[in-house]
Amino acid sequence: MNYIKAFAPATVANVACGFDIFGFAVDEPGDIVEVRRRDEPGIVIMDITGDEGRLPRDASRNAVTVVMQHLLKKLDRLDVGCEVTLHKNMPLGSGMGSSAASAVAGVFAINELLGQPFTRHQLLPFAIEGERIACGSAHADNVGPSLLGGFVVIRSYQPLDVFTVPVPDSLHCTLVHPDIEVNTKDARYILRNEVSLKNTISQMGNVAGLITGLMKEDFDLISRSLVDVIIEPVRAILIPEFNEVKQAALDNDALGCSISGAGPSMFALSKSRLEAARIGKAMQETFELAGISSKLHVSGINKEGPKLLEKR
Amino acid sequence: MNYIKAFAPATVANVACGFDIFGFAVDEPGDIVEVRRRDEPGIVIMDITGDEGRLPRDASRNAVTVVMQHLLKKLDRLDVGCEVTLHKNMPLGSGMGSSAASAVAGVFAINELLGQPFTRHQLLPFAIEGERIACGSAHADNVGPSLLGGFVVIRSYQPLDVFTVPVPDSLHCTLVHPDIEVNTKDARYILRNEVSLKNTISQMGNVAGLITGLMKEDFDLISRSLVDVIIEPVRAILIPEFNEVKQAALDNDALGCSISGAGPSMFALSKSRLEAARIGKAMQETFELAGISSKLHVSGINKEGPKLLEKR
Repeated sequence: MNYIKAFAPATVANVACGFDIFGFAVDEPGDIVEVRRRDEPGIVIMDITGDEGRLPRDASRNAVTVVMQHLLKKLDRLDVGCEVTLHKNMPLGSGMGSSAASAVAGVFAINELLGQPFTRHQLLPFAIEGERIACGSAHADNVGPSLLGGFVVIRSYQPLDVFTVPVPDSLHCTLVHPDIEVNTKDARYILRNEVSLKNTISQMGNVAGLITGLMKEDFDLISRSLVDVIIEPVRAILIPEFNEVKQAALDNDALGCSISGAGPSMFALSKSRLEAARIGKAMQETFELAGISSKLHVSGINKEGPKLLEKR
Repeated sequence: MNYIKAFAPATVANVACGFDIFGFAVDEPGDIVEVRRRDEPGIVIMDITGDEGRLPRDASRNAVTVVMQHLLKKLDRLDVGCEVTLHKNMPLGSGMGSSAASAVAGVFAINELLGQPFTRHQLLPFAIEGERIACGSAHADNVGPSLLGGFVVIRSYQPLDVFTVPVPDSLHCTLVHPDIEVNTKDARYILRNEVSLKNTISQMGNVAGLITGLMKEDFDLISRSLVDVIIEPVRAILIPEFNEVKQAALDNDALGCSISGAGPSMFALSKSRLEAARIGKAMQETFELAGISSKLHVSGINKEGPKLLEKR
């Protein structure tokens, strides 16, 4: 193989009650990585589109190419050289797993180029390393679902223990990205280091309820469990009109609505594409009333993860 | 109906990672309540066996008869009178849901006597009230599984939201009650009111893992998730030889081992009755080495809950 073009999906992390442990993939948006072999060893970046010039063009400092290099080193294949082009289709700091989608597309693409020496699960540590470089925190709740597809639980990091949970086929996601930016590091910084035992118990109940609801296809239980008593009350203040937008989603039959990842994107879950579209319209209109433009993505739960778009 | 004799099972609450939200019922031990109609209105206690004289004989102060009276009042049937006999088959303060089994047997029996005016779920608030009277805390993680059978999650108390989770048929429980006593109020008192965010995240991961493992019948995942980083490290000091007994269970292929409820009973889960018996033997021997006698119960997961033993 000399050329691979691969897509990796955006993701919704936390999913209300599951801070740092839950995430799911959506069909769109997503980032695209092109990898082309070259004769000399080493990875170089040819171009990055869609990032407004904000990501490093130096391959030794860009998270995507750094982890591709780690993967080559692990395989003892530092003889391999390639040219990388990265197409960002979502803004940085959007809360939709932008850095994760790029890292996953990158490691997936180079693994395809080399004839799949690693399984999907084996690629995960490389993608997590990409998150550490890009965001300063080695979290897996975006790279996990972007790489494996579906609804993913990160039970533990040491050792890494990641698994998928089946979800109802009719479950749909509304993802609204308001045109403001939240820095993931800031969003982490404002969290308290301690949680009351009472709130811990409530949140554990919601975690148990969401997993059971997804597996039993019990939409009422899913809805009752999409409640975050720990993180959302703190981070909501970073998103103007958060309460109003959430209420608009719930008024339009959303099963639940909360912050996507560290925000400012907000997600809602619902029982059909039609409902998801209606919810999205209501959420966008509510942002607009406050003069905030936004972008809408309506999608099923993406069970596939990264996708090979082209190879030759 | 003039006479009902009913059994309600012991329960294991918390189940390692699910403090105050998880519980399951076992086949034995369990408490038995006999209810016999009498001509005059009002509930009287005829006898209590197996409590070493420690429970109130005054029906207006005994949790079981108080909640039976509440049930009659709710039905506007204060004309009904009955004589109650309570057979305690497990010690008070054992961590096996002793007070819950009695309360459940009581409300189940009087509901049968009256021709089932309430569903099982409708009986739950009465049984929870019994816990409040008996233990000073209206928790449902023992009465829930004792009344509904199976593995039960209490997602929320306000409003009450309780549901069952399917478990593998081959799952078995070893329950060992060392001959020491822990007061539930003391066991609550030593807990910290704050939990680190880090431990909250770990525990949520284990909650998600245990539910997924039970529903997928993935015993490895069940085993990895039977970990309690919040409560067990604090309460284990109340149980002499806790670490040694737990290790003995794990050395004998237990999927996990922790404190049953507030202790001092300890439970282990395993994949067969044979394993559960072997684990129990090893746990008892370890207690014995420290001069502590104990009682062993080996059981499947009781999916039935309370049982009508006799009616006429």
